[in-house]
Amino acid sequence: MRKQKPVKDSFVIMTELVLPNDTNTLNNLMGGRMMHLMDIAAAISAQRHSNRIVVTASVDNVSFQAGIKLGSVITLQAQVTRAFSSSMEVHIEAWSEDVPNGTKFKSNEAFFTFVAVDQSGRPIDVPEAVPETENEVNLYEGALRRRQLRLVLAGRLHPRDANELKALFELE
Amino acid sequence: MRKQKPVKDSFVIMTELVLPNDTNTLNNLMGGRMMHLMDIAAAISAQRHSNRIVVTASVDNVSFQAGIKLGSVITLQAQVTRAFSSSMEVHIEAWSEDVPNGTKFKSNEAFFTFVAVDQSGRPIDVPEAVPETENEVNLYEGALRRRQLRLVLAGRLHPRDANELKALFELE
Amino acid sequence: MRKQKPVKDSFVIMTELVLPNDTNTLNNLMGGRMMHLMDIAAAISAQRHSNRIVVTASVDNVSFQAGIKLGSVITLQAQVTRAFSSSMEVHIEAWSEDVPNGTKFKSNEAFFTFVAVDQSGRPIDVPEAVPETENEVNLYEGALRRRQLRLVLAGRLHPRDANELKALFELE
Amino acid sequence: MRKQKPVKDSFVIMTELVLPNDTNTLNNLMGGRMMHLMDIAAAISAQRHSNRIVVTASVDNVSFQAGIKLGSVITLQAQVTRAFSSSMEVHIEAWSEDVPNGTKFKSNEAFFTFVAVDQSGRPIDVPEAVPETENEVNLYEGALRRRQLRLVLAGRLHPRDANELKALFELE
Amino acid sequence: MRKQKPVKDSFVIMTELVLPNDTNTLNNLMGGRMMHLMDIAAAISAQRHSNRIVVTASVDNVSFQAGIKLGSVITLQAQVTRAFSSSMEVHIEAWSEDVPNGTKFKSNEAFFTFVAVDQSGRPIDVPEAVPETENEVNLYEGALRRRQLRLVLAGRLHPRDANELKALFELE
Amino acid sequence: MRKQKPVKDSFVIMTELVLPNDTNTLNNLMGGRMMHLMDIAAAISAQRHSNRIVVTASVDNVSFQAGIKLGSVITLQAQVTRAFSSSMEVHIEAWSEDVPNGTKFKSNEAFFTFVAVDQSGRPIDVPEAVPETENEVNLYEGALRRRQLRLVLAGRLHPRDANELKALFELE
Repeated sequence: MRKQKPVKDSFVIMTELVLPNDTNTLNNLMGGRMMHLMDIAAAISAQRHSNRIVVTASVDNVSFQAGIKLGSVITLQAQVTRAFSSSMEVHIEAWSEDVPNGTKFKSNEAFFTFVAVDQSGRPIDVPEAVPETENEVNLYEGALRRRQLRLVLAGRLHPRDANELKALFELE
Repeated sequence: MRKQKPVKDSFVIMTELVLPNDTNTLNNLMGGRMMHLMDIAAAISAQRHSNRIVVTASVDNVSFQAGIKLGSVITLQAQVTRAFSSSMEVHIEAWSEDVPNGTKFKSNEAFFTFVAVDQSGRPIDVPEAVPETENEVNLYEGALRRRQLRLVLAGRLHPRDANELKALFELE
Repeated sequence: MRKQKPVKDSFVIMTELVLPNDTNTLNNLMGGRMMHLMDIAAAISAQRHSNRIVVTASVDNVSFQAGIKLGSVITLQAQVTRAFSSSMEVHIEAWSEDVPNGTKFKSNEAFFTFVAVDQSGRPIDVPEAVPETENEVNLYEGALRRRQLRLVLAGRLHPRDANELKALFELE
Repeated sequence: MRKQKPVKDSFVIMTELVLPNDTNTLNNLMGGRMMHLMDIAAAISAQRHSNRIVVTASVDNVSFQAGIKLGSVITLQAQVTRAFSSSMEVHIEAWSEDVPNGTKFKSNEAFFTFVAVDQSGRPIDVPEAVPETENEVNLYEGALRRRQLRLVLAGRLHPRDANELKALFELE
Repeated sequence: MRKQKPVKDSFVIMTELVLPNDTNTLNNLMGGRMMHLMDIAAAISAQRHSNRIVVTASVDNVSFQAGIKLGSVITLQAQVTRAFSSSMEVHIEAWSEDVPNGTKFKSNEAFFTFVAVDQSGRPIDVPEAVPETENEVNLYEGALRRRQLRLVLAGRLHPRDANELKALFELE
Repeated sequence: MRKQKPVKDSFVIMTELVLPNDTNTLNNLMGGRMMHLMDIAAAISAQRHSNRIVVTASVDNVSFQAGIKLGSVITLQAQVTRAFSSSMEVHIEAWSEDVPNGTKFKSNEAFFTFVAVDQSGRPIDVPEAVPETENEVNLYEGALRRRQLRLVLAGRLHPRDANELKALFELE
């Protein structure tokens, strides 16, 4: 039987300072640098769940609202939501904090998918991810729908077969 | 009347060498670094269309297939597909090339959205983007559908009102 | 009266991946890079306590045991132990984790001192730091002794006046 | 017979954003960073011609005119001009673009020479480089003269034997 | 008999420019970056004494006075003070220079300890370090006392057995 | 009368460790990175002579012989050779050292030219550079000839008017 592991064992907190080279000419963090940080935080989370080397398989839609100033503190929290044979979906939230001004806001939220691989880079099975809190259960259940959307967007699933997604459009 | 500009004026080619610090323990390019490069190439393209400072507004789903080895040459091509008042969608393709072995493959494809801003960071209108080739026209037309998907995913449009998207699921 | 703030409000967790450029020719993390990370984590902690810009005033003795391999995950935890008018002592612990092998050990522990400054770089008062748990109280009480040692080592206090320190050598 | 390859097959376009760490205290790109970028663009071009690992053998005189501002877009174009047994001369041009202001100027032009090497670092023959356009033919023909100058400057050719160069000084 | 080597053979001068990414929001060099530079200078010094790969074993108390501005030139001088079987103590001094203003001050002074290791990372003996000038002799003699302090602080020597240190507190 | 300053006041020693990101796929230092380091060392030297902000004006021919391995120690020495109204020629030598193997060789030698500028970037006069040793006098005297070569190569001096250079080709 497949090994089980609580999703909370994969929890990661990462804290980063926004440095000059991370910013554009408005002195705001560049979007690509935020995605770079999210990828590292999420990869460590997937590593912790699988105890394997992991590689990024996909990144879902990420949106950016308010600008994040030079000198801000960024806090990223990442946790595996669900595991499929060798792949894991990771949920990441990013907060931006202007510490001297005492302000903090949630700047980004995203889902990354990683595949666990062996030393030759071949996919390898990972433990089942067990959600415990209500929030973890919701993220676990939504993972199927997000996975169908990824497959449709990658052209590997026909929209008419994406039952989870169709429900979203017809019934809600 | 709003200024018009051919989309091809925003074309950008970026070439990068994969260096040790860009790689994971398998000596493959990390996904986050690729997204960082895509963001820079796409931002330069949006700058060229708008002649403005631009900020990343969103990144659509990106998927990663084969690993890209240390020492590879990455070529990114970015071009604006369509402009909405102050925002621009940019299409990016990335190729990975192992030059000594003479192999090259398309490693990634993505759509990024940027907003043009003035010196205070406020959105400002951009020229209309005019497609000319058949491929440019296809990308231009698909932009509306991708935009609805972004709005639905960001929770700013109810799926039942996403007509372009619904067509995709009901008719094909 | 001076504002009071629980020390736990300054708690920071930072997680970092050991990248190629952080390593020496044995593929181990260089000591200077670890101190660089500790300084950033500790500075964010001191910022959170004071809601001010902070500058490093001193670093106490740091020792390095086992080597930390390329690809390891480093977790740093920093928290203010005690505040003196405008300065704060921060306690930092660093763990090194080889995630695929499932091993983790405490690699470093140190005390950094920061001074809160205003926009012109002049020292400015900070809130009192209030310890709550037994461990926090111990760190709070030891802070005086460590401060005397710093002053003696910096040549700003004569050893015969360092009562806290003398007790250490004569009585224990 | 030696393999032939059109010089245009080695054409490379590289686009870079000037970031804070690339600049001096006047917020202008440092000359050394520009040479670093030119070396990477030129190396990729020489790799494409030879399908080999290449190492920099020499850099000809480079001059710097107007300053290039933080936030500018740099476009480098590199192409092999001529191949000698295992070495290749590469011509590089760099343009600097202030996109929001719509200004662009040619900032630098240089010739780099690379040697193709095998896995042990030993020189190895490369294909002949065949010029096609008039400009390519001019660059191809000038390559001999520039090569003599390099040899004279490196103390490996006596000026009296540098016939190509002498013509330059006596006849024009 | 153990090989002898004058301490001056390990002398290292390192010069660095303070770049934007090295600075905090006041445009001053971050303390952690200074420690990073000190570690590299000191490691090269210990390498020169031992002709071995070296790893950082400990860093003594470092204090920071005046801020060092963006664009400053930092000069570090490092030299081995004394060698113990496989470890070496290195003395480092750092000066900060605002060249256009013609000002220069000593910003830091510290002692780092390194261990020489073989290719498998095991400690290996190093030559004796022979002081020659009066200043070198003073540093050589103080090395024992600083070593006891390190052992006490690391909890590996009981304060009552630290004779060199006790003298400091009782007699002066 | 113009201020005079001995050339030795501009002497700079810079020491650098070759890190993974500085190397190509053969684990050798990339030529562009060496030029980047030379530019920084030479700029500090020109700053010391002029006590001004300086910008790179030109780099003379640089050649690269043997490869420099990852982990090597690079020592750069830079010194002004001669000053012309607002420009200064700087001579740079680079040595590469494999410390554990006890080998060291001179890897590069070059001449860079810098212009001193005021806060608005306008050229400003610098002190006269006074050579003292025989070697300094030789470098001082050769500076005129190298300057003519630069002007010819930049197309700003007709070869027939380059008397210093012509002598080189006709008489030796």
